Amino acid sequence: MSTGRLEAFSDGVLAIVITVMVLELKPPDGEDWHALFHTSGLGLLTYILSFVYVGIYWNNHHHLFQLVDHVDGAVLWANLHLLFWLSLYPFTTSWLDESRIAEVPTIVYGVNLLGAAIAYFILQRSIRHTPSGDRAAAALGSDLKGKISPVLYIAGILLALWEPVVGIAPMVVVAAMWLVPDRRVERFLAAERDAQAG
Amino acid sequence: MSTGRLEAFSDGVLAIVITVMVLELKPPDGEDWHALFHTSGLGLLTYILSFVYVGIYWNNHHHLFQLVDHVDGAVLWANLHLLFWLSLYPFTTSWLDESRIAEVPTIVYGVNLLGAAIAYFILQRSIRHTPSGDRAAAALGSDLKGKISPVLYIAGILLALWEPVVGIAPMVVVAAMWLVPDRRVERFLAAERDAQAG
Amino acid sequence: MSTGRLEAFSDGVLAIVITVMVLELKPPDGEDWHALFHTSGLGLLTYILSFVYVGIYWNNHHHLFQLVDHVDGAVLWANLHLLFWLSLYPFTTSWLDESRIAEVPTIVYGVNLLGAAIAYFILQRSIRHTPSGDRAAAALGSDLKGKISPVLYIAGILLALWEPVVGIAPMVVVAAMWLVPDRRVERFLAAERDAQAG
Amino acid sequence: MSTGRLEAFSDGVLAIVITVMVLELKPPDGEDWHALFHTSGLGLLTYILSFVYVGIYWNNHHHLFQLVDHVDGAVLWANLHLLFWLSLYPFTTSWLDESRIAEVPTIVYGVNLLGAAIAYFILQRSIRHTPSGDRAAAALGSDLKGKISPVLYIAGILLALWEPVVGIAPMVVVAAMWLVPDRRVERFLAAERDAQAG
Repeated sequence: MSTGRLEAFSDGVLAIVITVMVLELKPPDGEDWHALFHTSGLGLLTYILSFVYVGIYWNNHHHLFQLVDHVDGAVLWANLHLLFWLSLYPFTTSWLDESRIAEVPTIVYGVNLLGAAIAYFILQRSIRHTPSGDRAAAALGSDLKGKISPVLYIAGILLALWEPVVGIAPMVVVAAMWLVPDRRVERFLAAERDAQAG
Repeated sequence: MSTGRLEAFSDGVLAIVITVMVLELKPPDGEDWHALFHTSGLGLLTYILSFVYVGIYWNNHHHLFQLVDHVDGAVLWANLHLLFWLSLYPFTTSWLDESRIAEVPTIVYGVNLLGAAIAYFILQRSIRHTPSGDRAAAALGSDLKGKISPVLYIAGILLALWEPVVGIAPMVVVAAMWLVPDRRVERFLAAERDAQAG
Repeated sequence: MSTGRLEAFSDGVLAIVITVMVLELKPPDGEDWHALFHTSGLGLLTYILSFVYVGIYWNNHHHLFQLVDHVDGAVLWANLHLLFWLSLYPFTTSWLDESRIAEVPTIVYGVNLLGAAIAYFILQRSIRHTPSGDRAAAALGSDLKGKISPVLYIAGILLALWEPVVGIAPMVVVAAMWLVPDRRVERFLAAERDAQAG
Repeated sequence: MSTGRLEAFSDGVLAIVITVMVLELKPPDGEDWHALFHTSGLGLLTYILSFVYVGIYWNNHHHLFQLVDHVDGAVLWANLHLLFWLSLYPFTTSWLDESRIAEVPTIVYGVNLLGAAIAYFILQRSIRHTPSGDRAAAALGSDLKGKISPVLYIAGILLALWEPVVGIAPMVVVAAMWLVPDRRVERFLAAERDAQAG
């Protein structure tokens, strides 16, 4: 199967996830700055964090599937598994916000992030068994960021047991780390073009 | 008519159905594990079940339309009929969850699943009258799973009359049965390629 | 400009409109058949009516843009104007349902249908000024259904002044009339192919 | 990277933003014209304003990416940054409406419009560093409207400090200004075709 519909469906789900989170942001109970910051301030911050996360996954998904020509049934399900974890972001973000970053909601948010990271790892694995697998593996290389991220999520979960707000810190670090544009795939494709031309 | 927009529109509707169900999941009324499991635990389980169902329909729809080149007005409406039943999932799932799996909501959920299965059957039939109909019929074969599924839904509906939670069991079995990747279409397309090459 | 993104964006908006109406359907207040029919029965009926309407517009839009190769800025805005009226369906459908088909909500629903019909007419007109305009005009012919529909909507609005439920009748007739597959475009494209081949 | 998925994802997000705003429109509390105008009248007006804004951004985005063949990671993030500001429209529009155009919500709405305008400016800048950059720069020319808009938003924000409803006026002017179809890109592409043909 070609990847056209898998990409279109994933784009649809990610576009909805990234947008409906704003529906959980209730308009402030009042008409002044205090109402905005008090009622919606934290909601806006957690919205930005989750928006960046979904943006990162969309970016990485976009890069990953540039390396893939054909997919099989296993990749379709691995992709749906990733979308499942991402679809929970509005739910866990909303709880994190409503509880004003209490212990258990912070842990659950971290578990959600960790689940998505593991699902992305499984998706990459499932692609290695397709005809384009070797090419994808070569382009992605050692995937250092992909290996550090789960460690930081687990650190965040453990720190949240001690002090929830501190537990958010490593999660913000992961987001910041991935915001730096990742040129692996672009460089690999450019090198491939050069090799073909040379 | 080519199938491009039919597939794009279906991807859009399915992406929304699979995602908005999470909007029905209210954040827990409290900040601890007990609140999560008590308020949202069952909601998460029914969400997973309906997510898997929509995922299965997307998968099957994706496979089916790889066999089809052109569609007519009848196929467009048969497809909209399928999307109608799938669009009710957030409603019936939400009632099932809020009633904590009471008798009538379980029956209604089963009728919703049955309606979607019948609509999918009608969609396959409507495709047989298009130019690609024979090819689709050959690839799909006897469609054993497609014939067992409605029987299991009806069994679930009848069992729900006796004990609702037991009625959910055959519905979970159908989902599990379809999770096993279905290689009919992939094999058919591979055999076709081999025959052309040979 | 090619029509690709106009079609994709319209598919997105229509997919969302057709799906979010189900979010307005609140789960029944109770666990039995009476609760389902009393709380949600009318909501399901109005949902079906609006679902069919959006389905008809998607179908017609799909047929129309098969005749069009290039669009200009005026067509983009005429299309957005149509999407605006269709985007109001969840709002007017929801009021119609909550008021249990009272007079003013029925009139407003009729005005919404009428607004979409006029916007569709303007969209067809705006296409006549594009390079594919003559071809589209030839394929659409006298557009009898398109001319009867607004008359029936106005009849429905006037009847609603006397008895709201009776006012719904002509609106249902319009929906039924368009459900009959419209083969104008398919026949035109087939004749065009024959002429080129002959 | 080609622009296909960037355009598809943006179409998805914009389609959702433009549609979900209608979900914030609560059905009127009552069944008569007074209820409609009193409860929902202002909501409909602010909905129309924000609908037009999202429509303008979709139109401009559509024109802009006709000039671009390849994008890099920086453009992906600049585009996500624009989508972030646009995704806040349902939130700020809803607050503007619920406060019945109070001072702070009007300022926040203006800041949201200004943020989107700045993000669009950054997106255009980021495109100049891609291989199609010179072509895009030539087609967009001096971008007078793009430079006047932020000035008018700031005027609106300042006027809102004095009288909120007056502050809305310059924002409506910007929307009206952009509604006039912008033929720069169409003319540029036509001239380019003529040059190639000549």
